[in-house]
Amino acid sequence: VTELRRDVTTDNWVIVASARATRPSDFAAHTFTRMPPGPKDDCPFCPGNEQMTPPESSVIRPGSTPGEPNGPGWAVRVVPNKFGALSQEGPREEASEDGIFAHRRGLGFHEVIIETPDHQATLGHMPVKQVELILHSYLDRYRALSADPQVQLVVIFRNYGREAGTSLFHPHSQVIATPVVPVAVQHRLDVARRYHDATRQCVYSDLVESELEAKERIVSASEHFVVFAPFASRMPFETWIVPRRGCATFAGLLPEELVDLAHTLRSTIARFEVGLNYAPYNYVIQSPWLPEDGSRYFAWQLQIIPRVATAAGFELGSGMFINSVRPEDAAAFLRGVTV
Amino acid sequence: VTELRRDVTTDNWVIVASARATRPSDFAAHTFTRMPPGPKDDCPFCPGNEQMTPPESSVIRPGSTPGEPNGPGWAVRVVPNKFGALSQEGPREEASEDGIFAHRRGLGFHEVIIETPDHQATLGHMPVKQVELILHSYLDRYRALSADPQVQLVVIFRNYGREAGTSLFHPHSQVIATPVVPVAVQHRLDVARRYHDATRQCVYSDLVESELEAKERIVSASEHFVVFAPFASRMPFETWIVPRRGCATFAGLLPEELVDLAHTLRSTIARFEVGLNYAPYNYVIQSPWLPEDGSRYFAWQLQIIPRVATAAGFELGSGMFINSVRPEDAAAFLRGVTV
Repeated sequence: VTELRRDVTTDNWVIVASARATRPSDFAAHTFTRMPPGPKDDCPFCPGNEQMTPPESSVIRPGSTPGEPNGPGWAVRVVPNKFGALSQEGPREEASEDGIFAHRRGLGFHEVIIETPDHQATLGHMPVKQVELILHSYLDRYRALSADPQVQLVVIFRNYGREAGTSLFHPHSQVIATPVVPVAVQHRLDVARRYHDATRQCVYSDLVESELEAKERIVSASEHFVVFAPFASRMPFETWIVPRRGCATFAGLLPEELVDLAHTLRSTIARFEVGLNYAPYNYVIQSPWLPEDGSRYFAWQLQIIPRVATAAGFELGSGMFINSVRPEDAAAFLRGVTV
Repeated sequence: VTELRRDVTTDNWVIVASARATRPSDFAAHTFTRMPPGPKDDCPFCPGNEQMTPPESSVIRPGSTPGEPNGPGWAVRVVPNKFGALSQEGPREEASEDGIFAHRRGLGFHEVIIETPDHQATLGHMPVKQVELILHSYLDRYRALSADPQVQLVVIFRNYGREAGTSLFHPHSQVIATPVVPVAVQHRLDVARRYHDATRQCVYSDLVESELEAKERIVSASEHFVVFAPFASRMPFETWIVPRRGCATFAGLLPEELVDLAHTLRSTIARFEVGLNYAPYNYVIQSPWLPEDGSRYFAWQLQIIPRVATAAGFELGSGMFINSVRPEDAAAFLRGVTV
């Protein structure tokens, strides 16, 4: 017996088909291709190899041993992606935005946030102070790139493990700033605005309250954040980190919230590392550019999507996901992981 | 230098970042985990093992040796998926379609179309007459399931290879009939209707004409079908098969079109098998349920999406794809494959 569930933030349905599944704990035994660290000598993200990347666009250097720009001594280092999906390069060529074959230049930004000098570190087990520095870098890049008049959307994301699309082991995140608003992002905004029109409430605030009340999908809760497996999770173990304060954009993160988020993010990822044997995952900060009244109806959130199942033809064709682990079971499993 | 391209059928942008890529031919050398056929004894889709599946819901048995129901002698066999995402089973439990946690019973159909008794066959190299029989089964199931009043959408799809989400080698397709219309499907209909409102034309007919005129993305063309790598391909080697006749739903396929489609589908898949070394792929027939005037603005199409790249955090977060092979290069490569 399976169930259809609607994601109130997208109006999309997912199929929760737990009959198809083994128990959540079986995923822990699953043999993911855990990525080998590989040699440091070839690693473009290791200290001493700074010349292997483009010059840094932003950097955090601890006070006592700051070092030279583009040399060792950094704690977090941000560089343009050498093979960026979008860039500031190229001629100002003609764009055509009308008709069947609308196109424009790939103008934007694509950066890599090198999260630590420690090649072998993992996000769930590095010092929490280091995670704070990473979040400072996220904020810095989000604010800097959002301020560029050509930018319409800033997406901060992390790919961990080969099945999640990464080719380099050294801990890193990425940020892409696009000159367009993708359909899925606009849709999410529209759904939230319609919800507000109908109820005068922010759907994300209502969601957090309802999840806290329902309890069974909560993974953890802190002063400023609630971590839960969403009611309509698309993938097994999908997990969202949502601020308690209806905080419209990531740029508005307060200093005390940042400290809390560092703890919360680190411990949540540690649950995946320990509980799911370093399963591959993506996470993304959903924080679109908002119209002036957007803070009434939208709140940013961090979505973690483990890649322990494969979206296939049905998902690609319909946009509807089949999830083989009940979110209630996923949350109970993640709650039970000692970190 | 990269480019943004808009898909006129979805209004979504893709990033074509060919600078990131190797040449198309390099994909042929890529080491996909080509799935081993595995033993026939354990295969629930092999003749003689019919008792390993639920009883057939539809079957094609050649005239001279028809055999008994649920025994050998069939050419194409359709059975309910043993671990179906949707089914007719279970109690009539309460549904709640309002509020934060809207849900309903997973009522629908999920069937497997066993395409041939030949365990080792591949779609690109089986007899074209067999492909005709498969398409007859597709049509039969599409029509039968569409006629059920609880069904809102019928999705016929094929997963080939492990990275495309299949676990069984024996050639098979699947069909899922859902009691809801997913957001992405509704969006595709809305875009087509708006295009028609603005231009009085069907966007799919305009697209076929424009692609034929542009030539560079055409893979092949026959009397009734045009095969091309869409201008805004989401994935390397994405390929669409679109009817020349603006044919609104797959159910309206004419007998002579079916014969042509069998040739066209088989030879297109053969290009992938030969040219891309049996790379994993999904295909899906996009043919949503239409309102009465739908035939003016919509046409069904078959979309093939090779799984030679991994959608990562950016794609999951934004719904925007980064494609590392220019569709023009993909089409030229596929045209050049001798089949």
